[in-house]
Amino acid sequence: MLASVLIAKKRDGGELAPEEIQFLIKGYVEESIPDYQMSAWAMAVYLRGMTPLEIESLTDSMIHSGACMPKLGSSIQRVDKHSTGGLGDKTSLILAPLLALFDLHVPMISGRGLGITGGTLDKLEAIPGFRTNLSQSEINGALNKIGCVITGATTDLVPADRKLYALRDVTATVPSIPLITASIMSKKIAESLDSLVLDVKWGTGAFMQRKDSAIELARSLIRIGERMGVRTHAILSDMNQPLGRMVGNSLEVNESIAILQGAGPNDATALTIELAAVLLVDTGKAKQLDEARGMLKQKLDDGSAWERFLEMVRFQGGELLGELPVASRFHLRAPSTGFIDKIDGQLLGQAIIQLGGGRKIAGERIDPSVGLEMNVRAGDQVKEGDLLLNVYAQTESDFMQVQALLLSSFEIGSHPKELNRLFESLNDHGQLS
Amino acid sequence: MLASVLIAKKRDGGELAPEEIQFLIKGYVEESIPDYQMSAWAMAVYLRGMTPLEIESLTDSMIHSGACMPKLGSSIQRVDKHSTGGLGDKTSLILAPLLALFDLHVPMISGRGLGITGGTLDKLEAIPGFRTNLSQSEINGALNKIGCVITGATTDLVPADRKLYALRDVTATVPSIPLITASIMSKKIAESLDSLVLDVKWGTGAFMQRKDSAIELARSLIRIGERMGVRTHAILSDMNQPLGRMVGNSLEVNESIAILQGAGPNDATALTIELAAVLLVDTGKAKQLDEARGMLKQKLDDGSAWERFLEMVRFQGGELLGELPVASRFHLRAPSTGFIDKIDGQLLGQAIIQLGGGRKIAGERIDPSVGLEMNVRAGDQVKEGDLLLNVYAQTESDFMQVQALLLSSFEIGSHPKELNRLFESLNDHGQLS
Repeated sequence: MLASVLIAKKRDGGELAPEEIQFLIKGYVEESIPDYQMSAWAMAVYLRGMTPLEIESLTDSMIHSGACMPKLGSSIQRVDKHSTGGLGDKTSLILAPLLALFDLHVPMISGRGLGITGGTLDKLEAIPGFRTNLSQSEINGALNKIGCVITGATTDLVPADRKLYALRDVTATVPSIPLITASIMSKKIAESLDSLVLDVKWGTGAFMQRKDSAIELARSLIRIGERMGVRTHAILSDMNQPLGRMVGNSLEVNESIAILQGAGPNDATALTIELAAVLLVDTGKAKQLDEARGMLKQKLDDGSAWERFLEMVRFQGGELLGELPVASRFHLRAPSTGFIDKIDGQLLGQAIIQLGGGRKIAGERIDPSVGLEMNVRAGDQVKEGDLLLNVYAQTESDFMQVQALLLSSFEIGSHPKELNRLFESLNDHGQLS
Repeated sequence: MLASVLIAKKRDGGELAPEEIQFLIKGYVEESIPDYQMSAWAMAVYLRGMTPLEIESLTDSMIHSGACMPKLGSSIQRVDKHSTGGLGDKTSLILAPLLALFDLHVPMISGRGLGITGGTLDKLEAIPGFRTNLSQSEINGALNKIGCVITGATTDLVPADRKLYALRDVTATVPSIPLITASIMSKKIAESLDSLVLDVKWGTGAFMQRKDSAIELARSLIRIGERMGVRTHAILSDMNQPLGRMVGNSLEVNESIAILQGAGPNDATALTIELAAVLLVDTGKAKQLDEARGMLKQKLDDGSAWERFLEMVRFQGGELLGELPVASRFHLRAPSTGFIDKIDGQLLGQAIIQLGGGRKIAGERIDPSVGLEMNVRAGDQVKEGDLLLNVYAQTESDFMQVQALLLSSFEIGSHPKELNRLFESLNDHGQLS
């Protein structure tokens, strides 16, 4: 087999056989196929697409570049959630302990923020001492003792994805649905899950700006999950404004604490409960979604979710004595009277990066104490001078430098607009329901 | 400027600005842009295409990666021919000395064979002592003394093309009309030509199998030549059977000698004269093509072209004492009676490579003495047992090993078919005329 022949086949719109895709991935990881052939192939995939069989082969080849997480020999079902990333998305912090309360194991392998959306590991590292580099035996210990863990990937977990993702990042081949599908699903399937729920986000504060692209990605993810033996469900959620009121690492931990204590904002609480409810029904812990929602709400209200979260934090070395400290607060006020038509998450995210709360390049240190607190939501009526948001910044000068950018992220119109639904489910046929 | 942003722009079908293309080519040659970004970009170009302005920018950037050949301060016009390569195409060997007889300078920079079509340098190196690695000052000397030279590119001539071509060769990005156009035209324009004629070939024995692709390439080449100040003309020629009767390095030198002495086969002689005639009219050496054809034919018939060829051979160190020796001759006979419908040049070319007359990988040594002598042409009527071709091979065993392949290259049908015209011209509007 010749890599250049396989690249040409994909370039011309052909379907690569499973052994051909395996040849490419294995060769790439073993360095017999160089970066420059793999990037040409990735661009051909980007522009020509892949069939479901090809995506399955790619996912499978990537999984087999490393080792799957071991099943622990228990009959306890293993579940996880994956989100495609959005501004203010802190649902993972709540979901892991919440699901663990229902005799489920949640081995949540998470990532860092790059670009405008934050990363779960960065949020948790805002807690002093919290470790996100657990070994496989520590992960096993956490599952056995607490039922959940949130940590970074071990080096054994899908090494092909790390290598291919780094290459895609610098060759303009990231936003390809087949490649995203294989990247996400290889890591989730390598967790040896029984059931997976996906939170596929669209809008200005998400990776996918367009709803139809998000639906296409959701269908692709479900299809591959089902083909590869993991029961997979998807929620499509609106990211045209931040989820919850807080954006920024420490601020989001603090908001998560509120949600875990049943006192969080409605949108973030509802989405978290919905994602968890899908898994409770799927694993037979509840008969119907309504029942599941009630069971979950109770665990937030009675303090048991919060208690389990604290156990997880302690297991992972963290010390949480209440709310985390945040930077100084400055006010951003409405420049005119009207209705909030649009909140541009890309611009909000850029402002947070400028404040030091996100990364311009991989590996940069971030300041967890900065961020934004939304005082309005899309559709709200505001008067000139009303508070739009609180900006948490190290200095007034830092605040002044992002003020114009933040103001430009709000569009204020003269008439109320119809609002998007916060989330919708995709049914088993991949249709919105 | 970021390479990944420029790759994304081309990936999405955008037009890169001249300075953006220059950034890529300059960065690639200076190694600030790695192979893996360039190959992703080349694949995006392959699948998205380029506008004429982009191809012009690319050609220009590639030329400026090195130095152009110096004008020699004379008023003598400089001309050249480029062929896209075909089986049995030996026109360069005749054209260079023939045109030099008309007070024109012909600095013919040629290449080696790879794939099924032969290379002019390989053919000339079948002549003992012939050097194809002349320095720029030797090239200048040849032009001043003889008026023509056929040699390989100096290291200064378009280094970006050497680097990019080697990358394209292993990343399935060779057959892209914009990239081919820039590759060909950068080298020709760097020769500081006044006038250029292109022989764009199509058919089973050519690089382009389809006539419409060849027309598209011809138009692209003419457009870029004209935009960049080189008067450019194109002939479209049929390569559904070898040009002339001989295929193989020494055999083609021998056939070239016959053509140079006015005793060659009609097709190769006619195409050579046509290409040269276009340049004589373009440079004002003749008023009309008919007149030019007559002037050229005379130079073949009266021995002056042959004399000038010998001068060139001697200048470049070659010793030619008559026909070159060839390998042993074996006969391939018609397996049935009928009309020759089709002669597959790809298969003939593969047989020559198997006999040792071509390369499987770059840099391989080749045996100049092997090859094929066609005894029939497409459309000919044959009886079972008639001679189809003579095979020149080192051993009978070598011949036996290619016999089936050679037989499969002939299709013999029961009715005569309409034949293609050997060549057609493209007029100034890029239309066949």
